Amino acid sequence: MKRLATLDASWLAVDSEDTPMHVGTMQIFSVPEGAPETFLRDVVERMKAQREVAKPWCYKLSYPGNLGRLIAPKWKIDDDIDLDYHVRHSALPRPGSERELGVLISRLHSNRLDFSRPLWECHIIEGLENNRFALYTKMHHSLIDGISGVRLMQRVLSTDPNETNMLPPWAVRPDQLRASKDDDEASIAAAVSHALDALKLQADMAPRLWGAASRLINSVRHPEDELTAPFTGPVSLLNHRVTGQRRFATQHYQMERIRKLAKVAHGSLNDIVLYLCGTALRRFLTEQGELPETSLTAGIPVSIRPADDQNTGNQISFMIASLATDEADPLTRLQDIKNSTKKAKEHLQKLPKAALTQYTMMLMSPYILQLVTGMGGRMRPVFNVTISNVPGPSQALYYEGAKLEAMYPVSLIAHGGALNITCLSYDGSLNFGYTGCRDTLPSMQKLAVYTGEALDELESLLMPDAASNTEAPESRAPAKA
Amino acid sequence: MKRLATLDASWLAVDSEDTPMHVGTMQIFSVPEGAPETFLRDVVERMKAQREVAKPWCYKLSYPGNLGRLIAPKWKIDDDIDLDYHVRHSALPRPGSERELGVLISRLHSNRLDFSRPLWECHIIEGLENNRFALYTKMHHSLIDGISGVRLMQRVLSTDPNETNMLPPWAVRPDQLRASKDDDEASIAAAVSHALDALKLQADMAPRLWGAASRLINSVRHPEDELTAPFTGPVSLLNHRVTGQRRFATQHYQMERIRKLAKVAHGSLNDIVLYLCGTALRRFLTEQGELPETSLTAGIPVSIRPADDQNTGNQISFMIASLATDEADPLTRLQDIKNSTKKAKEHLQKLPKAALTQYTMMLMSPYILQLVTGMGGRMRPVFNVTISNVPGPSQALYYEGAKLEAMYPVSLIAHGGALNITCLSYDGSLNFGYTGCRDTLPSMQKLAVYTGEALDELESLLMPDAASNTEAPESRAPAKA
Repeated sequence: MKRLATLDASWLAVDSEDTPMHVGTMQIFSVPEGAPETFLRDVVERMKAQREVAKPWCYKLSYPGNLGRLIAPKWKIDDDIDLDYHVRHSALPRPGSERELGVLISRLHSNRLDFSRPLWECHIIEGLENNRFALYTKMHHSLIDGISGVRLMQRVLSTDPNETNMLPPWAVRPDQLRASKDDDEASIAAAVSHALDALKLQADMAPRLWGAASRLINSVRHPEDELTAPFTGPVSLLNHRVTGQRRFATQHYQMERIRKLAKVAHGSLNDIVLYLCGTALRRFLTEQGELPETSLTAGIPVSIRPADDQNTGNQISFMIASLATDEADPLTRLQDIKNSTKKAKEHLQKLPKAALTQYTMMLMSPYILQLVTGMGGRMRPVFNVTISNVPGPSQALYYEGAKLEAMYPVSLIAHGGALNITCLSYDGSLNFGYTGCRDTLPSMQKLAVYTGEALDELESLLMPDAASNTEAPESRAPAKA
Repeated sequence: MKRLATLDASWLAVDSEDTPMHVGTMQIFSVPEGAPETFLRDVVERMKAQREVAKPWCYKLSYPGNLGRLIAPKWKIDDDIDLDYHVRHSALPRPGSERELGVLISRLHSNRLDFSRPLWECHIIEGLENNRFALYTKMHHSLIDGISGVRLMQRVLSTDPNETNMLPPWAVRPDQLRASKDDDEASIAAAVSHALDALKLQADMAPRLWGAASRLINSVRHPEDELTAPFTGPVSLLNHRVTGQRRFATQHYQMERIRKLAKVAHGSLNDIVLYLCGTALRRFLTEQGELPETSLTAGIPVSIRPADDQNTGNQISFMIASLATDEADPLTRLQDIKNSTKKAKEHLQKLPKAALTQYTMMLMSPYILQLVTGMGGRMRPVFNVTISNVPGPSQALYYEGAKLEAMYPVSLIAHGGALNITCLSYDGSLNFGYTGCRDTLPSMQKLAVYTGEALDELESLLMPDAASNTEAPESRAPAKA
């Protein structure tokens, strides 16, 4: 039996009907050309025949004594896994477009995991139009974080389209995992983990930490006027308590389009992503008469090289930037966002390593506390929306000869933060996954559509000649739920 | 706001992850011949366009004050129902046989309802082989009981294959419901309700009732030796605590086959049903080395005419009969079952009306208490398995021209009773629905198959000449999960 880390245990403690704490990955594959009619069924059968279950897929919770979930749960290895329960073959109703897929993923992501079994499900979904299928895998956040989940699913795949008899996700042993270029990524979970390392947080220290963090934050003297501080975002539609049902939507664009815009705008790729999200959010909230007077803020995990450190590479930190949703003019909005991220990054980059670590901890602590105590939505938000931009594989990947066409994280949301946007690059495209609370965001698919329209608009503003030639064939109708 | 009846409220109180208290109906339809490719999508669109939601579909729970679920919940009318949430278009993976359907129904029936919304879901399922589709509707037991749910879904249908533009289930107002021949049916829920009427049970009387019922049961002097008393069944595999996941399987046979057997055996239709279930259970438990030495007992709702009442028709009562699972010889087993049901019925029929009511209450009380207190599986079972046999519509029914081919109740199970078998007659066939606990009954589909094989065997024993000619084309592979 393996003891759960304190933080992992807290994801269990905060899991509830309204805030199920699992994370997912959705992958879309093309059936190989010339494959037999039975291709997918054969794949499912081969997958299910592989009954050896590796870590962490074989872990289930064990509660020594009768003291309930909060008291020191442990992981134990389940050597009698009901694989027919965990591995599920599903189908989409016709026409099987991204829309029907989004609806199904939303439903599946809304269902809680069964806590008496290993905390994962793997759904193989047939009937996606243009001879494609999808794989949706969910796992509890106490076992894995969202980006590590994406990595886990990615490492099951091969760069070789001719490789066959591949292992199913649950049978790939950690030591067989294809090496990742960098395990330390600018994800929310990594930032949380760095923040906690800095503090050696124990669950019973939480009240003391809360006080310390509040004092620290109040005492911060920002040298730059334009630095966006925590707790300065408005209390928006996105920052109340959430309910248990989810929506999921997707968009993907050619990376080249984003890259060109970043170059012309003298900004970073991330600035363009923030601009697209901010612009879509501004329109979305305006239409509902819910646009706050002050700008929404985004919490963004970043990878930073400390000022005094030339050797050990980057460190994960966290920044808060303005989305300039209070600015009506698109180009001024872009400029505001660029200024905000520039100031935030400069601020981080000036910090020596020790201070950077402490600063990250200070900035993240209230967010972490809102998460693990479930207090989010009952206090002022630390920031309004989480936007992550994570680099993914640059080469095409395959499973049993089926090409991976796109890959999206399906995130968790928590009280006080009804929307999560995570972008993942893959093989020349940028994949946007929107995870939201069903009741808070009844027309979330519009937000996804507006992101695409913001991209078209920015192109026509910054590159008026080029934009007229762009047909944007890869900008699909969004998956909606 | 409408106050919940005490019993209805108790279904909410006992609802848990392990024992979700909803009941379902599964209906299978054929797409009309010559219908366009888009038939089902059009039906779903037409259904969803009907946004007027009738009672009880529009009721949602309201908890005045902050005292949690147990404290006096009320029904209030939800006038802003998110119909896209409740009405779900799904599909089966290929080949879309009864097996894939059973797997999907099992999953859907395992998911709990969202208590912040009206307590129902309606799933339209495409991709069932031979150009068929299915409708699975679930509703919380605090709103409806299983058989009333079947009736509700039945009354939405028409006997006219040419009727179109029909209302979806949730839009049929109670006063528009086609009249049923008899609202007082021999179902578990009706027996429970009669038992409670007799006692005017209040939730706070439960402890007193428990004592009274125990005394009554202990004091019963059965005049006949062969009368099967409550609490005399063994503690079998079926009678422990249950976990939250379900299995669902189906079988259907020509009613004519059962009727002929009943005639040749000088027994009732119900005797044959009990024989088939008992025989299948005996084989199923034997294979697992779990056959108890003494016979399993079944709890069976029955419709009885009291001895002193020539006018008011039948009354619902309850009997406990032996399934003779301890008897190896098939014909002796049938004889034992016939004796047991005969004695039980004679006993009931001799009772005057007042005593019958009291007897029903006495017999049902421990069962009701095990249900509503969630104590089942922690004490000796009142009986081992519930088997209901409910008469359904004798004519073919249609929805938007699509013929209803079969209809099955999907029941709830509770601690102490991991299996429910409910049979429903429809248009010349008898439809068996098996609902079980996934973990307790890992090969429940075998139980369904064995029922069919028990039918074949009994025919060859009782009608050796006729049986060799029977090809039983309607005995399909069971839906499995």
